[in-house]
Amino acid sequence: MNFIQEDFLLSTPSARRLYHGFAKDEPILDYHNHLPPKDIAENRQFRNLFEIWLEGDHYKWRAMRANGVEERLCTGDADPLEKFLAWARTVPETLRNPLYHWTHLELKRYFGIDELLDESSAVRVWEKANSMLATGGMTTQGLLRKFNVKALCTTDDPTDTLEHHLALASSGFNVKVFPAFRPDKALQVHLPEAFNAWVARLEAAAGVSVASYQGFLEALKARHDFFAAVGCRLSDHGLNHCFADFVSDAQAAAIFDRARGGHAATPEEQAQFASNLMLYFGQLDAAKGWTKQLHLGARRGVNTRLTRQLGPDTGFDSMGDWTQVDTLGRYLDRLEQENALPKMVIYNNNPVDNYAFATMIGNFQGGGTPGKVQFGSGWWFLDQKEAMEMQLNALSNVGLLSRFIGMLTDSRSFMSFPRHEYFRRTLCNLLGREMESGELPGDIAMVGGMVRRICYSNAKDYLGLPY
Amino acid sequence: MNFIQEDFLLSTPSARRLYHGFAKDEPILDYHNHLPPKDIAENRQFRNLFEIWLEGDHYKWRAMRANGVEERLCTGDADPLEKFLAWARTVPETLRNPLYHWTHLELKRYFGIDELLDESSAVRVWEKANSMLATGGMTTQGLLRKFNVKALCTTDDPTDTLEHHLALASSGFNVKVFPAFRPDKALQVHLPEAFNAWVARLEAAAGVSVASYQGFLEALKARHDFFAAVGCRLSDHGLNHCFADFVSDAQAAAIFDRARGGHAATPEEQAQFASNLMLYFGQLDAAKGWTKQLHLGARRGVNTRLTRQLGPDTGFDSMGDWTQVDTLGRYLDRLEQENALPKMVIYNNNPVDNYAFATMIGNFQGGGTPGKVQFGSGWWFLDQKEAMEMQLNALSNVGLLSRFIGMLTDSRSFMSFPRHEYFRRTLCNLLGREMESGELPGDIAMVGGMVRRICYSNAKDYLGLPY
Amino acid sequence: MNFIQEDFLLSTPSARRLYHGFAKDEPILDYHNHLPPKDIAENRQFRNLFEIWLEGDHYKWRAMRANGVEERLCTGDADPLEKFLAWARTVPETLRNPLYHWTHLELKRYFGIDELLDESSAVRVWEKANSMLATGGMTTQGLLRKFNVKALCTTDDPTDTLEHHLALASSGFNVKVFPAFRPDKALQVHLPEAFNAWVARLEAAAGVSVASYQGFLEALKARHDFFAAVGCRLSDHGLNHCFADFVSDAQAAAIFDRARGGHAATPEEQAQFASNLMLYFGQLDAAKGWTKQLHLGARRGVNTRLTRQLGPDTGFDSMGDWTQVDTLGRYLDRLEQENALPKMVIYNNNPVDNYAFATMIGNFQGGGTPGKVQFGSGWWFLDQKEAMEMQLNALSNVGLLSRFIGMLTDSRSFMSFPRHEYFRRTLCNLLGREMESGELPGDIAMVGGMVRRICYSNAKDYLGLPY
Repeated sequence: MNFIQEDFLLSTPSARRLYHGFAKDEPILDYHNHLPPKDIAENRQFRNLFEIWLEGDHYKWRAMRANGVEERLCTGDADPLEKFLAWARTVPETLRNPLYHWTHLELKRYFGIDELLDESSAVRVWEKANSMLATGGMTTQGLLRKFNVKALCTTDDPTDTLEHHLALASSGFNVKVFPAFRPDKALQVHLPEAFNAWVARLEAAAGVSVASYQGFLEALKARHDFFAAVGCRLSDHGLNHCFADFVSDAQAAAIFDRARGGHAATPEEQAQFASNLMLYFGQLDAAKGWTKQLHLGARRGVNTRLTRQLGPDTGFDSMGDWTQVDTLGRYLDRLEQENALPKMVIYNNNPVDNYAFATMIGNFQGGGTPGKVQFGSGWWFLDQKEAMEMQLNALSNVGLLSRFIGMLTDSRSFMSFPRHEYFRRTLCNLLGREMESGELPGDIAMVGGMVRRICYSNAKDYLGLPY
Repeated sequence: MNFIQEDFLLSTPSARRLYHGFAKDEPILDYHNHLPPKDIAENRQFRNLFEIWLEGDHYKWRAMRANGVEERLCTGDADPLEKFLAWARTVPETLRNPLYHWTHLELKRYFGIDELLDESSAVRVWEKANSMLATGGMTTQGLLRKFNVKALCTTDDPTDTLEHHLALASSGFNVKVFPAFRPDKALQVHLPEAFNAWVARLEAAAGVSVASYQGFLEALKARHDFFAAVGCRLSDHGLNHCFADFVSDAQAAAIFDRARGGHAATPEEQAQFASNLMLYFGQLDAAKGWTKQLHLGARRGVNTRLTRQLGPDTGFDSMGDWTQVDTLGRYLDRLEQENALPKMVIYNNNPVDNYAFATMIGNFQGGGTPGKVQFGSGWWFLDQKEAMEMQLNALSNVGLLSRFIGMLTDSRSFMSFPRHEYFRRTLCNLLGREMESGELPGDIAMVGGMVRRICYSNAKDYLGLPY
Repeated sequence: MNFIQEDFLLSTPSARRLYHGFAKDEPILDYHNHLPPKDIAENRQFRNLFEIWLEGDHYKWRAMRANGVEERLCTGDADPLEKFLAWARTVPETLRNPLYHWTHLELKRYFGIDELLDESSAVRVWEKANSMLATGGMTTQGLLRKFNVKALCTTDDPTDTLEHHLALASSGFNVKVFPAFRPDKALQVHLPEAFNAWVARLEAAAGVSVASYQGFLEALKARHDFFAAVGCRLSDHGLNHCFADFVSDAQAAAIFDRARGGHAATPEEQAQFASNLMLYFGQLDAAKGWTKQLHLGARRGVNTRLTRQLGPDTGFDSMGDWTQVDTLGRYLDRLEQENALPKMVIYNNNPVDNYAFATMIGNFQGGGTPGKVQFGSGWWFLDQKEAMEMQLNALSNVGLLSRFIGMLTDSRSFMSFPRHEYFRRTLCNLLGREMESGELPGDIAMVGGMVRRICYSNAKDYLGLPY
């Protein structure tokens, strides 16, 4: 059955004209993902479909668990084929879940497979994919070229040496691979053991000794400078919600000193310390013209027993329902008052926040950068058609869709690039429908021009990556 | 006017094929409702349309009040026909409210009436319905047979004797009627008078004297055992939000003792006591393989004056907007850590919680039971087409629709069985549209098979009721 | 390009029949706006398109800022044509934002302009509009007549002399212009300087000396009486969320006295004072049969620096995410218990509250006034097609759409009257689609009658304005 057809998700003639004429051939700038730079630098070749597709995919594990599959076949010690077969049996049960679309889109685009995956087709799919993965075009670098990726940004700890980014920069590989600065561990004064271990790594990376809060800030800035030199133009933070309990430098320093001495910060102190440090990170980004990303609202590790057993990012995270507006508003406002508001992309993880976030960004626009503060594309659980449409609608109705910097994969997998296609089809479908109904003018060049910019050039112009 | 047509709500050919080919003829397992077991056991015959349709229906009262109808004609002492006429005058004003659909669907399915109900048709409808209600097929038992109900679960206090369930079990009636265990009153240590009166009833029912917290737990377990013996396989709890302030047994016992002595628990103490007791109920259910239902988020008795005057469940309840995720997550997590997480169905009452709940269940799946933790079907105010679609979409996008155990009436009325039809048409309409648009494969057997399972067999397999 | 066509937004034949047959020709009762009564009384003529269209429009400023336009061209000292050109360049970037629809609808309805506004058409549009504005029909009074406005309600401080309303009432102008009572400043005991300055104005307006809390209440009542005499039948309050911390009169008086003495109320005291005063305002409205409006949930002045620089209502406000249900429920309940619940229209500013608000009103209906407590039409950021549909759907699904009093502009501009047309088209489109699909009966007279009432006569009957 040919499920993924040429006009998949494109329900009107205008949608088809928009996608095929304006979206399809645009290159990809994947400005936020979690791809391992080592795999790219070493041009990794995958031994089988399990390695490239299932090895670290918590979306699939969640679906398998919900289908009653035992943990042994998800993250356990079963062999790769056994695990793949368990996944194949689960696929037909994912009807209406984005996994059903992604699965068949990925099989089609990577391996030219048109069969629906299920128990009966599983072995054929496994063998065909594996034989193709054994060829030269299916290495990490080959895949980036195949999908017309111009540039991508990984996500990196400030203590990272960036050796793979450096190696890639000096290699002849023509896809640009930039780091992004993600200092979440710098906020963990409530976990002094982990914090001090991290500060030790920071000292080593920065080549300085951190004897004080001031020294800590300087070491962080040294890494920020180093990342910039390697081409970094984005930072990133994963937070339940923003922090906005600003204290004096002396108070922040006192909390720091206590943590350095092994005394855990109280929740209030941690919030104060994080508030000040997030201001500092904002100042660093603003000074260099970087773009700051805020990923807000994920509730992580909800299942304690299995998180302990399997580690983070194994599928036990879900949406939080914290109130977001107050702290987000005060954080942005404080940066604005200090004339230190960088470009920013704010992602939410619960659709209840869509409209509030979309209006919040409107309070901090201006000053010559179109779309200076962005409401980011549907993130994590919201990375699917319904939620993408919600995000696009909220942004459109209270902001400027035309200035949107569009899609990113946020993925750990080299098989996720069709997510850009999925987004583009969804976008074109939405706009095409409104062209047909008369809600948008029937001017294909005007609407198509907007589509094209959202696919690639808005992000390119906005982020100012050095390529 | 023939409003309720064969293809009502089915907007595409695929929707029609799904409904007529796969959904329509499936039996009903109404696993949660508030039907009076006495009425079933005694095979009650209704004297008129008022008795079967209006007598206890707070949905209709709310609509009538919003239409400016005086209380006398809603819950007051007006005579049945007068009240029916007031309702009939209100019906045309309910356009777009689910009552408009339900009203005409029910008149059609029970009495074959195709007229739109309004002031001009009211007397004809009244007379036709009343004459049919006087016949043998329209008793409670007759109606359960007519609607192809295989089994149903009522909602019962632990102190209930279950005499009607026992009588039904030993009668020849071939529709299975099971109790469900709803111990809300066991949590009310903040209302010592009501609490102690209830404990007295518990003592009588369990045939034990409750002298201590430990004795209280044992009496509750005795009733749980008794319910199980009568075929109960579900418990149920109505809570604003979960409780997750766990304390030691000694602390819970102290709160219990004070309430037994007539001293009201503080809000904090009540939350602590309820937290521990809800853990205990979870353990009881897990040990027996029962399914626990959580009905979260209804704000009850908002209008104090009329609630006092008319009692509970008279139409003065609405949606709450409590944050739910934190306490729900910690309650489930604690059960999971104690290896005492039963199967669970979680219902929300405000659509803002749809997506968060749908992701929450994904943290606690696995271990061999497909769909072990369920996001329940649209409840109360959400029991209508738009909100059903929201629930189905949230569940589909971040979970497995295919493992959904589907619809229940949650009703106090014997005229609510067409809600299953309404749900099934809505489900088929949603899936059919996506088959037509290419978002689902055009494989009618695959999609239809899922429809069929959601209509009946998923619930049958999942709940394990003894029939 | 003829973008605004006869059937704009009307996607089905039934929608077109409803709009053209039932909605289009209904008059307008614009029961809540912020038009300056002085401009009406003086029959202001606008010198150019900037004055009538851009001068105070923070929706446009937000869009321009998001488009990267400098502040000088939004609120700054650039000349009117320069600012208009900056706006014209921004318009094509607003695709999918309601501004794109409003812009072209307004240009068409006021000036007969069919061109899409952009840089290339800007000068032609400017010149055509300006030449028409120079004619007699385009004064404020001319425009009210042109748009078939029967009556409107402005928004006025209790200390206002209402001189322009009085002048209008004694002029021959046949559009009724009523005041509305908006006493927000009476709650500001946390800002004693502003509060006492306002009390001084109140004293002057009421012609009494306010020496005590009791005197304050009397002075407020005197103004309430005066407003009533001038035809006022609505009050209005802009609040983050309701207040429900009721205290004794003595406590409220003590807070009042301290504020009068220059001591700022604490946040708790301000909430207590506001709770009591809001009860008092409810009593005043109930006694006179007025309708109280609550505008809940806007978070104002989020950008401190620019709010200080440019003042309020300049585009730095957004949606809040406060929990609303508890305080709203307790405020309404207290009024109900005191038998002092007036008719009420409750507006929300974040779509997450739609369903909760729509169920909340259902707790306080009855007593002979159809739709006594109303869920108000989409407000501010929600005044667009998607959000209007959300409000209409929530209201329809848990309340009575047929009793809805419909649309208002809430605008500061004389070019906003097509918002009524926009709302009516949206309403007819929604209903027409459901007539075609069979979700509503195909009875055009029944559905059309409801449309007609929502457009005008429901509001006319409900509000009881003296005309």
